[in-house]
Amino acid sequence: MEIGVIGLGLIGGSISKAIKENTAHRVSGRDIDPAATGKALQEKAIDGILESKDLGKPDIIFVCLHPEQTIDFMRGHAADFRKGAIVCDVCGVKRAPVAEAEGLLMDHGVIYLGTHPMAGREFSGYDHSDAAIFRGASFIITPTDRTPEAAVDVIANLAGEMGFGMVVTATPAQHDRNIAFTSQLAHIASNAYVKSPALSSEIGFSAGSFQDLTRVAKLNEDLWTALFMMNSDYLTEELELYIGHLNEYKEAIQKGDAGKLRELLREGRLLKEESLRKERSDSQCLE
Amino acid sequence: MEIGVIGLGLIGGSISKAIKENTAHRVSGRDIDPAATGKALQEKAIDGILESKDLGKPDIIFVCLHPEQTIDFMRGHAADFRKGAIVCDVCGVKRAPVAEAEGLLMDHGVIYLGTHPMAGREFSGYDHSDAAIFRGASFIITPTDRTPEAAVDVIANLAGEMGFGMVVTATPAQHDRNIAFTSQLAHIASNAYVKSPALSSEIGFSAGSFQDLTRVAKLNEDLWTALFMMNSDYLTEELELYIGHLNEYKEAIQKGDAGKLRELLREGRLLKEESLRKERSDSQCLE
Repeated sequence: MEIGVIGLGLIGGSISKAIKENTAHRVSGRDIDPAATGKALQEKAIDGILESKDLGKPDIIFVCLHPEQTIDFMRGHAADFRKGAIVCDVCGVKRAPVAEAEGLLMDHGVIYLGTHPMAGREFSGYDHSDAAIFRGASFIITPTDRTPEAAVDVIANLAGEMGFGMVVTATPAQHDRNIAFTSQLAHIASNAYVKSPALSSEIGFSAGSFQDLTRVAKLNEDLWTALFMMNSDYLTEELELYIGHLNEYKEAIQKGDAGKLRELLREGRLLKEESLRKERSDSQCLE
Repeated sequence: MEIGVIGLGLIGGSISKAIKENTAHRVSGRDIDPAATGKALQEKAIDGILESKDLGKPDIIFVCLHPEQTIDFMRGHAADFRKGAIVCDVCGVKRAPVAEAEGLLMDHGVIYLGTHPMAGREFSGYDHSDAAIFRGASFIITPTDRTPEAAVDVIANLAGEMGFGMVVTATPAQHDRNIAFTSQLAHIASNAYVKSPALSSEIGFSAGSFQDLTRVAKLNEDLWTALFMMNSDYLTEELELYIGHLNEYKEAIQKGDAGKLRELLREGRLLKEESLRKERSDSQCLE
């Protein structure tokens, strides 16, 4: 197959490399930055440049731009894709792109499928792209009632070939609800963490827990503002729950209620242990 | 020198191993669990058992018990240590043990020094102990006006020999204020995180950020309840600051104020980047 990749940043670059390293498909790519396309060609992450006039050639296209640009690109090029081609976005939220792109592309005889490769790094851009970030990771697909089953199969198989550890199917709303907790809340919890004045005295007093909690504080604020705003309902709910729980600990500590504090900590430990057990049994099922 | 280690759990076991692997000092150890002492002897993490009647032999003693037990042990054995010996605790808070132990030991002609090896794992017990957890880590010493300088030098040199990356000196209060932010808040932020009902749908929707944020949710609630209660003033302040910051993000998202949200995220990113730069220049200074 011929596969097109629009945007050769961290995710688009890694998708191109994962396809080229693991499959026999041809990859054509494009980026507004000529340095990225130049390097991708040189490193054989892509076989050629995907010009606008050639958007009708690929069987599959991954649009790997920021959410608003992804929607703009699909709007601007709906008529340019091949009829019957599968066009995927890779945005970290799914209700908004599905709502914007699915009907539009379908009207042009193009199949749209929302996807979310669950991998990232605290760096962005082609230079940090690496097929290895997908190894063992989850590839989420969010088909709707209107998605042909064959298209889901094609993309799921491709994700397996690319090295993803599992392919998960969810509705766009299920995806957005889960991701508000597993990823979006984590980025806010981390970004808010570093705002204490005590940060200035951190050196020499921090170990693994501080590094873990604050790693993703280093985020791209343009990308994440768009993602958070497109998922504001679910994310607000998660933030309210989290703040409510933190207040319980604070009150127990403030009141000197060691029994209550111990119970709160025990509950959290047990939930984390159960979640680790499920992850382990789940990964055994995949083996 | 002869060095005694009281309690061969994760920290005591790791201290014994770090001394035996990196120095020529003799180590005697004790634990209420005969399986731990048996294994430590067999693995040559200790040279012998430290019986109660021999507490007067070591030049240095590390008391590696939970905070309340540490204080109880020092109270119960203040008269048994060698005059002029250096007795160190390794508790994660420092005001309380210093206040309880320093005067008491001094009255018996014994030198007390509060220390905090900044390393840990989300597992406890001798079986998880490992000299490698200290490699490159920070060893904090909290001397007071009453601590002989020579004792600080002896312990600082020993920490260097054991493989610690840096030795940091702070007052007990400075230590407790900084640790409330760098370590205690991290454990609560992580333990509270897993309490969303969305945890049950986590599998397939989580990547590095979720794993990082929730790693230390798996904690020993008895140990951490004691540590939090002994630092409740500073910890309450940090929790209030954190909850206040999280509320700012929540309000911006709820109001749909993308400009404000972007600014909040940008502030957090810049603070984290500055902190990474400081860590890097600091580690270069040590090389």
